[in-house]
Amino acid sequence: MVTRVVVWNEFIHERENETVRGIYPNGIHGAIAAALAGDPALSISTATLDQPEHGLDAARLATTDVLFWWGHKAHGAVEDAVVDRVVQRVHEGMGLMVLHSGHFSKIFKRITGAPCALRWREAGERERLWVIDPAHPIARGLPPSILLPSSEMYGEPFVVPEPDETVFISWYEGGEVFRSGLTFRRGAGRIFYFGPGHETYPIYHDPLIGAVLRNAAHWARNPAPAWTDVASAPNVPVEQAPEPLAPRGPSLHAPGQEGYR
Amino acid sequence: MVTRVVVWNEFIHERENETVRGIYPNGIHGAIAAALAGDPALSISTATLDQPEHGLDAARLATTDVLFWWGHKAHGAVEDAVVDRVVQRVHEGMGLMVLHSGHFSKIFKRITGAPCALRWREAGERERLWVIDPAHPIARGLPPSILLPSSEMYGEPFVVPEPDETVFISWYEGGEVFRSGLTFRRGAGRIFYFGPGHETYPIYHDPLIGAVLRNAAHWARNPAPAWTDVASAPNVPVEQAPEPLAPRGPSLHAPGQEGYR
Amino acid sequence: MVTRVVVWNEFIHERENETVRGIYPNGIHGAIAAALAGDPALSISTATLDQPEHGLDAARLATTDVLFWWGHKAHGAVEDAVVDRVVQRVHEGMGLMVLHSGHFSKIFKRITGAPCALRWREAGERERLWVIDPAHPIARGLPPSILLPSSEMYGEPFVVPEPDETVFISWYEGGEVFRSGLTFRRGAGRIFYFGPGHETYPIYHDPLIGAVLRNAAHWARNPAPAWTDVASAPNVPVEQAPEPLAPRGPSLHAPGQEGYR
Amino acid sequence: MVTRVVVWNEFIHERENETVRGIYPNGIHGAIAAALAGDPALSISTATLDQPEHGLDAARLATTDVLFWWGHKAHGAVEDAVVDRVVQRVHEGMGLMVLHSGHFSKIFKRITGAPCALRWREAGERERLWVIDPAHPIARGLPPSILLPSSEMYGEPFVVPEPDETVFISWYEGGEVFRSGLTFRRGAGRIFYFGPGHETYPIYHDPLIGAVLRNAAHWARNPAPAWTDVASAPNVPVEQAPEPLAPRGPSLHAPGQEGYR
Repeated sequence: MVTRVVVWNEFIHERENETVRGIYPNGIHGAIAAALAGDPALSISTATLDQPEHGLDAARLATTDVLFWWGHKAHGAVEDAVVDRVVQRVHEGMGLMVLHSGHFSKIFKRITGAPCALRWREAGERERLWVIDPAHPIARGLPPSILLPSSEMYGEPFVVPEPDETVFISWYEGGEVFRSGLTFRRGAGRIFYFGPGHETYPIYHDPLIGAVLRNAAHWARNPAPAWTDVASAPNVPVEQAPEPLAPRGPSLHAPGQEGYR
Repeated sequence: MVTRVVVWNEFIHERENETVRGIYPNGIHGAIAAALAGDPALSISTATLDQPEHGLDAARLATTDVLFWWGHKAHGAVEDAVVDRVVQRVHEGMGLMVLHSGHFSKIFKRITGAPCALRWREAGERERLWVIDPAHPIARGLPPSILLPSSEMYGEPFVVPEPDETVFISWYEGGEVFRSGLTFRRGAGRIFYFGPGHETYPIYHDPLIGAVLRNAAHWARNPAPAWTDVASAPNVPVEQAPEPLAPRGPSLHAPGQEGYR
Repeated sequence: MVTRVVVWNEFIHERENETVRGIYPNGIHGAIAAALAGDPALSISTATLDQPEHGLDAARLATTDVLFWWGHKAHGAVEDAVVDRVVQRVHEGMGLMVLHSGHFSKIFKRITGAPCALRWREAGERERLWVIDPAHPIARGLPPSILLPSSEMYGEPFVVPEPDETVFISWYEGGEVFRSGLTFRRGAGRIFYFGPGHETYPIYHDPLIGAVLRNAAHWARNPAPAWTDVASAPNVPVEQAPEPLAPRGPSLHAPGQEGYR
Repeated sequence: MVTRVVVWNEFIHERENETVRGIYPNGIHGAIAAALAGDPALSISTATLDQPEHGLDAARLATTDVLFWWGHKAHGAVEDAVVDRVVQRVHEGMGLMVLHSGHFSKIFKRITGAPCALRWREAGERERLWVIDPAHPIARGLPPSILLPSSEMYGEPFVVPEPDETVFISWYEGGEVFRSGLTFRRGAGRIFYFGPGHETYPIYHDPLIGAVLRNAAHWARNPAPAWTDVASAPNVPVEQAPEPLAPRGPSLHAPGQEGYR
């Protein structure tokens, strides 16, 4: 069973900034796709902001098992209709990997219901990602910690809901800490937020970061059939109640009428 | 320390439907306010959809500790600007009580990030609310279960995030179950979803339901000062890093520049 | 990758009580093993209280991926040394399925840290198991609810820690509810409590209950290597600190000394 | 409503080790009691290992609202009967504050069901406690982080159950991180684990640490009456079922008989 992954990137810094282009000549999405490509159980494609419907039309999302999301400068340019569609697909069971500055994407704010704020500093300092939960599938095969020689600091408080699981916590040279690997579930969808990935450092070329991304892709994949009516609120008519039931009292809805929403 | 409560109601059924008006001649908000009024530590006012800004202008929300929300027929008529304002205030620390059909309100879907769907049946059947967590502040002084002689059935799956705490689970005569009392937190705000409260039954006149609402108002109140910058993402300049730090490597942002969002 | 399952049963009622023996002539463990046997990815054996070390010597536990536990009358007869060994193996990554009256087993009380109390009634009443979380692997392929024509009532409050996930909630003819499918994690081990399974009803012969047991066996299996030093507290000497460090101040422990426990 | 606090200490290092005695001439319990004494809503007493029943007889525990626990060298010397009694009182609603090396106490291992292991280093390095959840009652009035100039390093993985809430995460000079403030609930009892407090550094004299301890004492107090039958499993006879019920099928227990445990 191959997991179909789409790596989405706003793909702006790489075209506007020479430093970033030097690090990611094929785009950040290209580097992530290359990191995932080592795994034959993953089938990988990419999508970018500038494509029609940002490369995420309904037919494509319907056949996507796991979506990686990298955005930073253009969160506001992502169309609400595409956001709605992605959120609906997560509820139906598509996995979602939110990367680095994606913490402020419309999608992550929508799916968490939280401000998703944090503190930050761009100083090329050391980051150490500690594995908090070594038995978690996302941590499979990793050493106790991963050293990133240069990273952007993301610091607490990270204003997200209490996560289902904390997989990584980061230490920074400058003195801060950050919950850099968190899992959530919404409907049938599994969500993983992963902190590392600043565009001015070659983080997605790091083999251990690649291992995390591959592990996460497998973890996020829900093999169940899509829960397509996850947002419906069906009426259960009296005659279909599990137990025999004689209706009584006043009623607002006529029999068979749909509920309000 | 008095807790300032605003009870919000769309206030439509009571004006359009004679049955509902007969049960709630002062509106559902009036009945809830009356149930809360027994508690001198609560200061209660009401607001409705038809008021300017739905009765929830910024100044009023800023002085509200806990907001009760009852809506059903007119979820779509609630202005997005008011929704944004309420969600922001919850993140800052305002408590939120989402009642009954409010499960499909814009506010609850936004704050949970989930579809919030469920099954339903309007047959006047018996509901028994079981106290799952008798040590919880919201359950203070309650018997093991509360009997509602006539209620609307709300059934599982209730597609919300795994809650922080499950306080009540309901049994229905027709054979279904429902997690009818759930807590969540977002930012500094505490959220309680409470299932009972269908408009064609006199549920808010029940003294035990009143006790739950009073308990919940106290539980939801966060006495901390409002966390007004909960959604900001401040830069921590290198010279303010807790540990001495020499910046290195390339940088996207100029010193002092704001981050993207 | 075959999952090695051991089904443990105290195996007393079936020898002492004719009714139970009539329903489970090969023992409850035999019926559970038969229900699991349909799945070629599971390798199944059984163990009982009367065997040396209750059939759970260290070598056998070391090669067990998932342990099913059925006990009722003889919780007190289970040796503490075996309990310790099982708990250690769960921490290392062995899955644990706690069935029905196993809620009061030494193992479940130890692993949850809670009283694990509940209410009960043995009246052969109808139980409906509702799937609360249809996207969960344990619910794969199940209908919205499972009807047990005769069951023992287990009622709330079920005094366990707030679970990681609530998979099933049961409705009873007599008016109660019960969280009958709950997941927990401890160390590397996944734990599933499953309510149905009273000895005087043929519940383990029900094909849908068998499907739950098979799903749960797969879910509980942690493919990571055993975390054998999960309970160790290693000293990290100063010279092995990730960052260069000059020790300062007084110290209680001599260099290289083990910590207290 | 005054909260009755008992500060328990094994009180060995202070008598055996001159350095520790110099820092805590009145014992660690004395320093903690002094830190709490600033709050008139707390009534404070102390207890130590060498007292009869370790100073924790049943009558005293019955009138204790919150118990602080500091132990290190003599975990094994704490009598199991006292451990059972403390755990039972936590289930009934007594708050429990587990401090520093208390992570390996019998009580904490029993109440969490986990190994509670961690890594450690005694090098007098800097620790920064970051407030992860500024809106939590335990963080009231605190700055974004607390600096401890000299501390023992406690590092991840900290093998405890996924906590209800993460309040503090610590940064260490030597490169590690640690979840140093975690909440749990068991029965009616609230538990807070707090990392700082090594005996060779004057941490409990720090005013901000004192503020955390006072906040935590108030948070942990459950004002509900003690849930004294939290561990009982009452039979609900057929004639007391909420819904009329005709028993059917075979039964193991005679009417009125107690359940097995």
